[in-house]
Amino acid sequence: MPKKDIIHVPIRSALEKDGWQITADPYKVIWEGKTYLPDLGAERVIAASRGTEKIAVEIKSFLGDFNIEFYEALGQFDSYRFAVADFEPQRMVVLATSLVAWDEYFEMPYVVRILELKNIPVLVVDTAAEIIVKWKK
Amino acid sequence: MPKKDIIHVPIRSALEKDGWQITADPYKVIWEGKTYLPDLGAERVIAASRGTEKIAVEIKSFLGDFNIEFYEALGQFDSYRFAVADFEPQRMVVLATSLVAWDEYFEMPYVVRILELKNIPVLVVDTAAEIIVKWKK
Repeated sequence: MPKKDIIHVPIRSALEKDGWQITADPYKVIWEGKTYLPDLGAERVIAASRGTEKIAVEIKSFLGDFNIEFYEALGQFDSYRFAVADFEPQRMVVLATSLVAWDEYFEMPYVVRILELKNIPVLVVDTAAEIIVKWKK
Repeated sequence: MPKKDIIHVPIRSALEKDGWQITADPYKVIWEGKTYLPDLGAERVIAASRGTEKIAVEIKSFLGDFNIEFYEALGQFDSYRFAVADFEPQRMVVLATSLVAWDEYFEMPYVVRILELKNIPVLVVDTAAEIIVKWKK
């Protein structure tokens, strides 16, 4: 079992406060002979016409060397998205991070552009208040 | 300047033996306010009808924890490919590794599938003999 990121609990709480039900922690997918463990599976019932919204959440605090951790997060995100797409195509894979990391790194032009080009949704949580402060879809 | 991978020199030699001219080491691209340094730029004049072939080569020995290093290599590869595409769209970005790493890791189903899905060309070098033994395009 991989070590949980330090901001795992506040992000989980923030999702629950926002009406999400945590259905798996970790959310496990077996794909091409390998087990993938994105941090959370979560579901939320929205207006009936939209049915159930489902996400898999990959949590990263980016407390170390951002360059290396960002590359690693991108590769991991791709792998999870490929795995989840074959297994549960309606589930959206989301990268979740703290407001501290967002403010420090996520407004740099190359980070903005890579997230756009790769179409990676980012969920930003104020980990002290345990609330979602931004959804960049 | 990033540390050169341990297999940098044998891969460079193998490319030269194969008729490539190394035009930059490292090959530097500035993109979205950030400097990217894929390991090598190389060019080869092929048959006139094909014109000039240009590659940027990212070298990875995968000597550590493969899971982490593979994710990191994928993220780095994407970033380089985005950067090079804006700067020199005719230059192909290639991941180069050793035959030892290829035999150990690159035939695992999830690795094969991810490289296919991401359309990542892989150049495999026998680093003892300093020769290219495989081009997976």
